[in-house]
Amino acid sequence: MNDSIKIGLIGFGTVGTGVVKLLFEENKPLLRDREIDIDLIKIADLDIISDRGIKIPDGILTTNVDDILDDPQIGIVIELIGGYEPARSLTLRAFEKGKCVVTANKALIAKYGRELFEAANNAGISYLFEASVGGGIPIIRGLNNGLNANTIKSIYGILNGTTNYILSGMTRDGVDYDEVLAMAQKLGYAEADPTSDVSGQDALNKIVILVRLAFGADLNVETVFCEGIENLTVQDIDCAGQLGYTVKLLAIAKRHEGNRIEVRVHPTLVPSESIMAYVEDEFNAVEVDGSAVGRELFYGKGAGMMPTASAVVSDCIDIASRLNAGTRVNFNRHMIEGNGLELIAIEDITMRYYLRFTAKDQPGVLFQISKIFADENISIESVIQLGASDSDYVPLVIMTHDALEGDMRRAMRQFEKLEVVHGRIQLIRVEDI
Amino acid sequence: MNDSIKIGLIGFGTVGTGVVKLLFEENKPLLRDREIDIDLIKIADLDIISDRGIKIPDGILTTNVDDILDDPQIGIVIELIGGYEPARSLTLRAFEKGKCVVTANKALIAKYGRELFEAANNAGISYLFEASVGGGIPIIRGLNNGLNANTIKSIYGILNGTTNYILSGMTRDGVDYDEVLAMAQKLGYAEADPTSDVSGQDALNKIVILVRLAFGADLNVETVFCEGIENLTVQDIDCAGQLGYTVKLLAIAKRHEGNRIEVRVHPTLVPSESIMAYVEDEFNAVEVDGSAVGRELFYGKGAGMMPTASAVVSDCIDIASRLNAGTRVNFNRHMIEGNGLELIAIEDITMRYYLRFTAKDQPGVLFQISKIFADENISIESVIQLGASDSDYVPLVIMTHDALEGDMRRAMRQFEKLEVVHGRIQLIRVEDI
Repeated sequence: MNDSIKIGLIGFGTVGTGVVKLLFEENKPLLRDREIDIDLIKIADLDIISDRGIKIPDGILTTNVDDILDDPQIGIVIELIGGYEPARSLTLRAFEKGKCVVTANKALIAKYGRELFEAANNAGISYLFEASVGGGIPIIRGLNNGLNANTIKSIYGILNGTTNYILSGMTRDGVDYDEVLAMAQKLGYAEADPTSDVSGQDALNKIVILVRLAFGADLNVETVFCEGIENLTVQDIDCAGQLGYTVKLLAIAKRHEGNRIEVRVHPTLVPSESIMAYVEDEFNAVEVDGSAVGRELFYGKGAGMMPTASAVVSDCIDIASRLNAGTRVNFNRHMIEGNGLELIAIEDITMRYYLRFTAKDQPGVLFQISKIFADENISIESVIQLGASDSDYVPLVIMTHDALEGDMRRAMRQFEKLEVVHGRIQLIRVEDI
Repeated sequence: MNDSIKIGLIGFGTVGTGVVKLLFEENKPLLRDREIDIDLIKIADLDIISDRGIKIPDGILTTNVDDILDDPQIGIVIELIGGYEPARSLTLRAFEKGKCVVTANKALIAKYGRELFEAANNAGISYLFEASVGGGIPIIRGLNNGLNANTIKSIYGILNGTTNYILSGMTRDGVDYDEVLAMAQKLGYAEADPTSDVSGQDALNKIVILVRLAFGADLNVETVFCEGIENLTVQDIDCAGQLGYTVKLLAIAKRHEGNRIEVRVHPTLVPSESIMAYVEDEFNAVEVDGSAVGRELFYGKGAGMMPTASAVVSDCIDIASRLNAGTRVNFNRHMIEGNGLELIAIEDITMRYYLRFTAKDQPGVLFQISKIFADENISIESVIQLGASDSDYVPLVIMTHDALEGDMRRAMRQFEKLEVVHGRIQLIRVEDI
């Protein structure tokens, strides 16, 4: 048996507490069975007072991260503070000290992946981040190892549990966005400030990480199209349902001819009989289409204390067995520099659209709308007036055939000028997966 | 860059051809991107004449496996001949020669896992078998690495593509077993002799492998309850559908209190809204319930040339990078000897049942049947007479509450003696997943 590998944890929040539970309580017999000897010896957090409902041995807690970074015993640092700074600096300092690092920090990897992977290689240590995407779903390993004999053609993901919980509630119970969000916050499925979730930013960070691993693309996260769920209404979810679609916040990445890729995150109409429509509440799913394996789906809890902690601990076990064998993770150039893939501008992407107008109930309205579509080369698939309205306005839903986003944006600017159209025009993209 | 790792392939059938395609044609640029240097230098098969539709460099084919086993250049042997012998002897010989082995042979691992894992450890080489379960789905890695911080509570699997294809056809098109089987054979989804698939044996081998990895149980495959799909009728699939259930060949493993496990393979009624009911045609799915992650699902093509080849090549890549780093896979005692878990006899397992009787359309029939249920302590949940019959007999469907299999077997023996019951009584187990 090898010496035990010593671990230091930075960040004792929800996931950190889950990690401590796994390492101190639940996993001792399991790890013994598997002949894995890891030992959490220090925990750093600004708050070392609050009761996390878990018994911690004396002398383990500290408010000073240097107690971990400067401890020569510690071989693995778990970084669970999130955000860019001080997470980035602490990670780089850990690398310099020759310590392996495990993180759940998707924002950091999405933005600084290249720098951090390169620094990890140079330091000769392992840097793992399974928990950064899909919580407890082993999708990072799936792409890096299980599917490494495949050229990946596309990835579709429901990557954010908060928004999926909200959309599921709106769909199932017909309850409005604000009300479900408040409920999600009460139940701990949404943060007090839910911006990074509901804006799509969290899902965006995750798809950028998956794209780096699967396609070898070094993307600037700020250049990727991202739209949140804040403007979705129960009315649109109902209309979509009547048309055979379910609304999901979908992250999409596709490889195109000529070394180009398409990446985007937005509310999406998916066919109600598709497996993505089945993914409800806090669950996540990633569907990968590989050249040899075809379509594969990984499904599970994408967030939460224990699922995320499970991924963090699996990374620790992986690194520990590498340390015992005297080896480490090495990032290849494909994962650091990328393969020079070019991101296609959102305006140049073709897709189908759902539009809902609140239109005056008078002759000629459809004529005015359809003229704009025709002028912009957008072909209408169907027009449905769903239910009558009490007022002078009726909801008019139009589904288009494939159209260029650039054309659609021009059309939208025209629609907004129409006098017969009232209020906001709802536009939701459609993906026939 | 390290020296290239040389590979020898034994067995040039369907999957072997897929492996050759991946290694010789499709994957060259991919592997270069990933800085993996593996080289297939020999292929052994009894038939080296048939055209597999793929260009093979001269001098690679041989009918003599010794050309591979005795070649000191070769570091990895891929065994794709299937069955127990000569696969087992060849594998052990490869180990003795210090060669790592990759296999897709589920029968071999299920029956001789303990011996082979121990021999691999003793020889100090890596032995991988991702392709043996779930085709291209990386479920072996998922259990061994991704979920290794979890105590696994249960596994549900649709593990055989052939039977799932047949059941999907029967369900969707209302076509009888024999007819769908013939179609499946024509399309290559079923073998000329489909016994090992339709009898459940193939799924049984796979669940026994998963149970070894997940629970640490060294089971004798012959002691596990297994029932095939040969006796299922469209009538039962229809009845189940009307009751809100879909019929699947399900492999089930559950951990019980007191170091006991339940493992079984049989046609199963699963709720039609469950994700398992969604898994159609040649797709497979494995749902794992882990102590920390909760329910996770792995879904994809469970068989076929390229998905299975993808898994074989991913194992080769894994071993190659270990060889380059001077390390190897090591099986822990938990995976070799097991944890002393005891297999619960099928008679002692509790579950719900669907029964269909063809009963005389006369008073007192239900009385006779329900008396037997009562005598055996089996509680009836519902009785449905589905549709009228032209003859003197009507189909009578009974769903039970939880009952012991032993009690149900005794009841079945009584039912068979009833004069008012005609022909075969259909019994299908129910799992409310």
